[in-house]
Amino acid sequence: MNYREQSLIKHGEWKGKIETKVRVPVDSRESLSLAYTPGVAEPCMAIHADVEKSFELTRRWNTVPVITDGTAVLGLGDIGPEAGMPVMEGKCALFKAFGGVDAYPICLRTKDTDEIINVIKVMAGSFGGINLEDISAPRCFEIETRLKKELDIPVFHDDQHGTAIVTAAGLLNALKVVGKKIENIKVVINGAGAAGISIGKFLLSFGVTDLTMCDRFGIICEGDPQLNPAQAEISRITNKSHKKGLLADAMKGADVFVGVSAPNCVSKDMVRSMAKGAIVFTCANPVPEIPYEDAKAAGAAVVGTGSSQFPNQINNVLVFPGLFRGALDARATTVNTEMMRAASLGIAGCVTEKELSPEYILPYAYDKRAHDCVADAVKRAAIETGVSKLYKKV
Amino acid sequence: MNYREQSLIKHGEWKGKIETKVRVPVDSRESLSLAYTPGVAEPCMAIHADVEKSFELTRRWNTVPVITDGTAVLGLGDIGPEAGMPVMEGKCALFKAFGGVDAYPICLRTKDTDEIINVIKVMAGSFGGINLEDISAPRCFEIETRLKKELDIPVFHDDQHGTAIVTAAGLLNALKVVGKKIENIKVVINGAGAAGISIGKFLLSFGVTDLTMCDRFGIICEGDPQLNPAQAEISRITNKSHKKGLLADAMKGADVFVGVSAPNCVSKDMVRSMAKGAIVFTCANPVPEIPYEDAKAAGAAVVGTGSSQFPNQINNVLVFPGLFRGALDARATTVNTEMMRAASLGIAGCVTEKELSPEYILPYAYDKRAHDCVADAVKRAAIETGVSKLYKKV
Repeated sequence: MNYREQSLIKHGEWKGKIETKVRVPVDSRESLSLAYTPGVAEPCMAIHADVEKSFELTRRWNTVPVITDGTAVLGLGDIGPEAGMPVMEGKCALFKAFGGVDAYPICLRTKDTDEIINVIKVMAGSFGGINLEDISAPRCFEIETRLKKELDIPVFHDDQHGTAIVTAAGLLNALKVVGKKIENIKVVINGAGAAGISIGKFLLSFGVTDLTMCDRFGIICEGDPQLNPAQAEISRITNKSHKKGLLADAMKGADVFVGVSAPNCVSKDMVRSMAKGAIVFTCANPVPEIPYEDAKAAGAAVVGTGSSQFPNQINNVLVFPGLFRGALDARATTVNTEMMRAASLGIAGCVTEKELSPEYILPYAYDKRAHDCVADAVKRAAIETGVSKLYKKV
Repeated sequence: MNYREQSLIKHGEWKGKIETKVRVPVDSRESLSLAYTPGVAEPCMAIHADVEKSFELTRRWNTVPVITDGTAVLGLGDIGPEAGMPVMEGKCALFKAFGGVDAYPICLRTKDTDEIINVIKVMAGSFGGINLEDISAPRCFEIETRLKKELDIPVFHDDQHGTAIVTAAGLLNALKVVGKKIENIKVVINGAGAAGISIGKFLLSFGVTDLTMCDRFGIICEGDPQLNPAQAEISRITNKSHKKGLLADAMKGADVFVGVSAPNCVSKDMVRSMAKGAIVFTCANPVPEIPYEDAKAAGAAVVGTGSSQFPNQINNVLVFPGLFRGALDARATTVNTEMMRAASLGIAGCVTEKELSPEYILPYAYDKRAHDCVADAVKRAAIETGVSKLYKKV
């Protein structure tokens, strides 16, 4: 029986992967009078007088909804909000297990950008941060951008930035393995959806200078009427010379390939055409751009995938629990690029020089040490960039 | 130090009365592959094929949001969504402790009726039922009515129906104490807001024939342009003879007074003017219509209050955990009057003939037995009225 068949049986037994836990006594007249009426009127009025107190007198300080519209669930596409719930519940379980964050899964029965933004804004007073999940591109860009502008709590679209952060962490360590510097490498990203564009922009912030973005038709280039605004923007930045060509052309001589695209679109020959010491991240899920073994056989020095079945799983589970832990602990008003860069460096730094190898560039997703590293780094970056409401930079 | 001062300190220590608990292992590659990717794709696709499976493969079957807009919190009024959170969290703790229901507190930053309805409809696929809380009248009537019509899960406004159910339960037992029949009694309700109107309508369903509704200006009467549609409706039903007068006039010779109104609006003389064997429920919170001791001193045979400091607390904590437990266990598509009547009878039936006394007409809020009685009764009523998706009437 494979994982999927086993998982279906398990989900039927579990009947839910998270539940509510009561943290206070309510088993007597006295305890009810403190946790509920009449006593509860006093914390209510304290928050009424100063809304910021909602972060001290309720669970708000530690609470994050995992919100989807069910349009881009795993690699399954638009399967609907209810069908997205098993993923969202799983994410909430990971939020708690690895970051100590209390997360609620909320699946929305709408695909309308304005409506999604409005629903989240209306609920935001209940939460310490907002995690957007599995919302399809290009709507996810506008939803995140507008919410970041209009809310004063961290807003994070995991499919974009979680993926970018863990990919960058993997790349930083893989470059140590092959002995190359980030400013000298030629990078090709295949897939110009939410994840690909976010990875591209994020790698630029780490000093990558030669980046080619491809989609299913090849290198993306400003002026193509098919491009959405986010794609047009990144091609304007990265493809100044208006290069054209197929993915196979782009990969010739490249140092790094990052795939967040479609099954089996990369051949062994395409990997062979890359530079010596090639790094191949083949992350399409569940079927990768090229199988792990084939990429290795074709000479790639370091190979990462989206699967836990091979070395170097590039999994954003390494990011979101610690990132929100750090942001919530700082009472950060946003998640900025410095905090995301700190998360990447935190993950990369978790692998010691001694441990580092072509088969071990990233910590395991269930390594608690990695999540603590991320949390510390993100909290520090929030304080240093002045977005913490609890701590001032000294 | 009183309860309110103590409660504020406790809330600062607790920093939240509920949290998320993880129900599944996620501490190894294997367990992650079942609870999360790649295994989770299978339950997702099973729900995609049949949305009803979301009640089997996720926590939806047991999950209810406690939703407020913060406009009518306790007796504190419109204190805002964030300030309502301590009450909502308390309610969620009681939902779990007494009913085993996983509840999330959600406080909405809007007072717009259409927007509240829409936000809840959009989120409804994540939940097994909806508990509305502390939303001011008359908006609460339209919000509940429209949601009941448009959703196929139980929708329940606790301030209306929870209060009505527990008041009716108390009245049924108090009538046994004084030896009167419900069809012969004269009832006066003071307070024509959400709770008062709901209590009035609900008592009619139990066979009350002589009911007078009052607000701060006295007996309410059809044709008064000040009345909202819900008030006009109940006065049309109950006050066919267009009686007018003050509360003091209405109370003369009455068998039952139910106050869900304002502090100190009932005098000892008004209680003295009632019929022999008078029942007085003085439930305004935190300061009642008449103090417990004064009502007793003025000759009332049975006195109930909203406070846990006196005998006979009329507290809807006795209702909502068991009511939702029963409705969820039946996978009921609604909460109908029969289910609510069953809840009242369940609560009343929890007090044995031997236990019943003028000082003990209702079980204590923390009496687990009472919640189990309510759950059983409500589940049975759901099945018998044909609104259960899991069980057929035999």
